[in-house]
Amino acid sequence: MEAARERCAAVLGVEPRTLYFTSGATESNTIVLQSLLLLPGAAGLAYSLLEHPSVTANANVLPRFGKTCLVVPSEADGRISAERMASTLAATPGIRMAAVMAVNNETGAINDLATIVARLRRDYGRSLHFHGDVVQAAGKIPMDLRSWDLDSAALSAHKIGGPRGIGVLYLRKPVETLARGGSQETGVRAGTENVTGALAMAASLERHALATTVAGSHQAADQRMARFIGALRKMERCTLIPADRADSDARFSPFILQAAFRGIPGEVMVRSLDDLGFAVSTGSACSSRVYARPVLSAMGIDRRTAREGVRFSPGWSTTDEDLQALTDAVRSVLAALP
Amino acid sequence: MEAARERCAAVLGVEPRTLYFTSGATESNTIVLQSLLLLPGAAGLAYSLLEHPSVTANANVLPRFGKTCLVVPSEADGRISAERMASTLAATPGIRMAAVMAVNNETGAINDLATIVARLRRDYGRSLHFHGDVVQAAGKIPMDLRSWDLDSAALSAHKIGGPRGIGVLYLRKPVETLARGGSQETGVRAGTENVTGALAMAASLERHALATTVAGSHQAADQRMARFIGALRKMERCTLIPADRADSDARFSPFILQAAFRGIPGEVMVRSLDDLGFAVSTGSACSSRVYARPVLSAMGIDRRTAREGVRFSPGWSTTDEDLQALTDAVRSVLAALP
Repeated sequence: MEAARERCAAVLGVEPRTLYFTSGATESNTIVLQSLLLLPGAAGLAYSLLEHPSVTANANVLPRFGKTCLVVPSEADGRISAERMASTLAATPGIRMAAVMAVNNETGAINDLATIVARLRRDYGRSLHFHGDVVQAAGKIPMDLRSWDLDSAALSAHKIGGPRGIGVLYLRKPVETLARGGSQETGVRAGTENVTGALAMAASLERHALATTVAGSHQAADQRMARFIGALRKMERCTLIPADRADSDARFSPFILQAAFRGIPGEVMVRSLDDLGFAVSTGSACSSRVYARPVLSAMGIDRRTAREGVRFSPGWSTTDEDLQALTDAVRSVLAALP
Repeated sequence: MEAARERCAAVLGVEPRTLYFTSGATESNTIVLQSLLLLPGAAGLAYSLLEHPSVTANANVLPRFGKTCLVVPSEADGRISAERMASTLAATPGIRMAAVMAVNNETGAINDLATIVARLRRDYGRSLHFHGDVVQAAGKIPMDLRSWDLDSAALSAHKIGGPRGIGVLYLRKPVETLARGGSQETGVRAGTENVTGALAMAASLERHALATTVAGSHQAADQRMARFIGALRKMERCTLIPADRADSDARFSPFILQAAFRGIPGEVMVRSLDDLGFAVSTGSACSSRVYARPVLSAMGIDRRTAREGVRFSPGWSTTDEDLQALTDAVRSVLAALP
């Protein structure tokens, strides 16, 4: 366990003692949000409706315990503005924690956590706990937990080539956690240690998330995505989400693209592409069973376009040829469903 | 996932829809206990200090939310009496949940859950949620979640030959859970599904926990344990815990034995036997880092004897020869430390 922790810490550029192994990012997010329940008074959480369900759903429970939930509006591109977040928080007393994801899992929108955290520190210093869900950032975009000055962060192995059932919680300083048990992970996360999972987490980070590796894979993915977006843009029924996403756009992860196809419900496009051998999705697996598209509606996307939204998420090993074949497949679906 | 669930359900004799995959029994216990926080009023928990830390530690948090914690005293043999439990509960209003483990992890004491649940149903019917931590029962003693009439039960794969990081929560009927996220496991346990873990859980249960398998392995273990206890009993410095445990004793799991050796702190015996190639422990791994022995003190074992307590836990594949060699090793430690 300690060797795995040190290896993860070396990749993430943090102290080993700040890393705790969990069963995944959902649990990591839950541990942090539940810690609010042990704080006195209204102890509020500020977050946006673009956060992952493991943040929004845990946030929804807080008011039942008298805690404040403050929803920060997102910009039209699905990103969080540091200034708007600061002014929203300033209008509500008692906010003790803020949660902003580094990369949105449905649109790829990148939040500039370093700037947001720095802006909030100006008003709150360390009295505000800043939590970052960095699941879609690790191994995909340049990331630096320490220089971003996060108080906590959540990672999952299975988003960086590792197995399911293991994740990491970064805690700059320990928080009092609600879920209890044995003294494993110095009490932050009880339960018999998943040693093989921890070693797999370390191996995944080493393989995909070293800064030098990410620099290369990010650039390659950006060029690939630019060509893919360029091809989609030529299809008149295709609308990128947000519509102003550029072929190469620093506001977005080049590993995630959301696009809508006029007249074709997202579920139909997903199934049609599946028939042709391509796995795409509507929304995330964590919310795919619900009809709504909370992320897209929080961005102000109209209902019809949101229903037509599909997420493309090429991986490290996806090639230009793969994306060309996918483009052809999308074209054939569009031709078959006029 | 669904195939794994059906296979687990077939072994456990319950409906597949009543089983939820978790990261282990600590999480399973936590989910059930945390559900109390969403009930109105004092909504109390009755449990004993012999429960696993994932029950007692989660119970300790409840009073901070205005919930009642009622500690049920154990009998001198480390078991819970149905009558004493009923009378203890009767004296305290507002108890909504009771937690009793099937087999104690430090002494092997077996609680007769069928009798305890039936007794409490007489007073409370289904208005009392009865939770059973059956981690040390599965694959070790005859077990029947349905005829025991439990409302919920917790299992871990790694106690029945499977990997760490996967467990099962049995819920006769769903409860409202506190930790939230995606809609996996019908919302009872959010997080991307650990499919390989679930399949390993099913394989472990099929290999070790079928009723016919358990009948055979339990009998073999009982005979083996009887010979081991018989050998320890001849050492005058050895005290069984409890002292009246018989060589073959239906009150105890034949896979766990607690014994104290006069003049030798438990930690010293553990290290000495480790040097000789035998892995025994003081208490459970989940509480091994704390000095206290809460299970033994809850049984009324005097402080000195408790400090000398060591847990022996032979497995399915342990042989008489292994235990003979262990007996010789214990003798040599005693001879070296007069």
